[in-house]
Amino acid sequence: MAMYAERLRRTRGRMEELDVDLLLLSVGADLPWLTGYRAMPLERLTMLVLPVDGDATLVVPRLEAPRVVERPELFDLRPWEETDDPVALVAELAGAPRSVAVGDRTWARFVVELQARLPTSSWSAASVVTGPLRARKDSAEVAALRRASAAADRVAAQLQAGEVPLVGRTEAEVSADLGRRLLAEGHAAVNFAIVAAGANAASPHHNPGPRVIGVGEIVLCDFGGTMPDGYCSDITRCVHTGEPPAELRHLYRVLEEAQAAAVDAAVVGTPCEDVDGVARRVITEGGYGDHFIHRTGHGIGLEEHEDPYLVGGNCEALAPGHAFSIEPGIYLAGRFGARIEDIVVAAASGPEPLNVVPHGLAVVDV
Amino acid sequence: MAMYAERLRRTRGRMEELDVDLLLLSVGADLPWLTGYRAMPLERLTMLVLPVDGDATLVVPRLEAPRVVERPELFDLRPWEETDDPVALVAELAGAPRSVAVGDRTWARFVVELQARLPTSSWSAASVVTGPLRARKDSAEVAALRRASAAADRVAAQLQAGEVPLVGRTEAEVSADLGRRLLAEGHAAVNFAIVAAGANAASPHHNPGPRVIGVGEIVLCDFGGTMPDGYCSDITRCVHTGEPPAELRHLYRVLEEAQAAAVDAAVVGTPCEDVDGVARRVITEGGYGDHFIHRTGHGIGLEEHEDPYLVGGNCEALAPGHAFSIEPGIYLAGRFGARIEDIVVAAASGPEPLNVVPHGLAVVDV
Repeated sequence: MAMYAERLRRTRGRMEELDVDLLLLSVGADLPWLTGYRAMPLERLTMLVLPVDGDATLVVPRLEAPRVVERPELFDLRPWEETDDPVALVAELAGAPRSVAVGDRTWARFVVELQARLPTSSWSAASVVTGPLRARKDSAEVAALRRASAAADRVAAQLQAGEVPLVGRTEAEVSADLGRRLLAEGHAAVNFAIVAAGANAASPHHNPGPRVIGVGEIVLCDFGGTMPDGYCSDITRCVHTGEPPAELRHLYRVLEEAQAAAVDAAVVGTPCEDVDGVARRVITEGGYGDHFIHRTGHGIGLEEHEDPYLVGGNCEALAPGHAFSIEPGIYLAGRFGARIEDIVVAAASGPEPLNVVPHGLAVVDV
Repeated sequence: MAMYAERLRRTRGRMEELDVDLLLLSVGADLPWLTGYRAMPLERLTMLVLPVDGDATLVVPRLEAPRVVERPELFDLRPWEETDDPVALVAELAGAPRSVAVGDRTWARFVVELQARLPTSSWSAASVVTGPLRARKDSAEVAALRRASAAADRVAAQLQAGEVPLVGRTEAEVSADLGRRLLAEGHAAVNFAIVAAGANAASPHHNPGPRVIGVGEIVLCDFGGTMPDGYCSDITRCVHTGEPPAELRHLYRVLEEAQAAAVDAAVVGTPCEDVDGVARRVITEGGYGDHFIHRTGHGIGLEEHEDPYLVGGNCEALAPGHAFSIEPGIYLAGRFGARIEDIVVAAASGPEPLNVVPHGLAVVDV
């Protein structure tokens, strides 16, 4: 496909620019972004060997070769047998590169084995090459992200409408329910479905567990998955079983304002850290500065988390096609917490939120 | 818990033996095996810094710190803030080790960043230290694997009894159905559910897709998941929609014989490669030697695939407590294929298969 050839051309261009002789891609999203093929996360090595000039070779376990859609214009296929040494094969194809960039999620065991075979090379992470390319989505990718967000929105709407029973069920049960709904709405895989009730909502990455949800509790739901085309969704909404107390209402109003202000701030040309700064300022002025303990957002695409990161210290400017979450949160340890998250695209015409279900604290299941 | 303290003691013992000054564990199963805590596979670094002598420190993102069950007798907890540099923190805790063993699945980007900070250290994979320790399961671990296999067996029995509709559904639909059944039978997560019908069954790692299953086809189902306690299941059974043709019956008889012979051969003291050799010999004598294109099996425990591997070239002897799959297959490209897989434990009293549902080619759904 012309799309992959164009991505390959741009990747080689950046390799030249950055003086990277060889790119080695294994598990993770760089490989499917560049070739349409996703490596299985297994102890059997799959690796694309891509010299800055010269032909690329995809080294795959023989038993996975039938899954590869061959693209001879992009790469040669080199299956290896169970008793072969795939690291030796990659090293042989690599030659003697001065500088190697290796896919960010490649397993360490393969990195150290390859380094032993290529002892004179200097090593860096492939995202230095691919990150900025992958971060700027083209219109087809934005459309894919829009479909993923719409599917997640439908599940969020069910949650807000009270169609997902909460009271009397465990967090784990509700998590499984949200997962089933993500699949029913078109996702191919569920990547996570955090359900955190009451005091558990003060733990941003809470593991949904056996805690039974009661009346008068906030229920933070943060869920996302991967669509059949590989693009991801990620949304957070909070609901409350019964009327929320005044203090929580106040906290939630501050949070809603911070999230909306950060979305408005996500215009092309703005440094990533400034978007984070906007959310942080609103929350600090609201009196909860110490309780917003994470960054404001992360890029999203073929991975749930990728460039660009909306975090203090990242002075990279937003560019057209950047797609990312905006998800401030406020967490009062031992009491409750809340987070609101949308996926947003930085378009030339201004920030475009892909999640459009209401942001308010819906009262449900009473 | 005494169990973790004992594992830590044995791990330090092997580090001394192998002259490893520092163990760095991140994503993967070594960390939960050693501490009970599983790192989230995220761009935010989680890493246990374990010197051969001296205290261990678990470096975690602050927003995940609430998930950690603290075990002060095992490690100190060191949360890092969103704008901190966790690699610098790990390097500071590391000191100046001569030799570092890093968890096999640690992301390459962290390895290359750490190497830049620790330029005089030599690097190896942590499985050199932990692999042999984790491979020999104690009685509680064998009991956990037995429960996981029993849960998978219940799903396989439903498949063989014709309770899983096949004809007229797509492979992907049947895959999702098997996944739901794994969860219903007690798994916490589905790791894979290969459903490969007809000619697709000749691709060992086939992606279940939109192909509609017809009458008169073999359907290869290879599925497994993780139980709430972290231990894994993995089973393969084949069924046939309607009466199988004579040629397939013959192929399947050869396969069944090979699988049973390999199970019988898996006695303590036998080199791993000899178990592989037994399955291969039966299949070769049956006339299908060129069509058994993968190893005979892999270890299983907290990971689906771990030491020991039953593959040509692995002369390690089976030891009491080794747990592994025995899963020969025969694949006729473009026509059909079959595989039979059980999890087996090498016990002092002889090989103990944990999967006990029948191995025959059940005729279903007609």
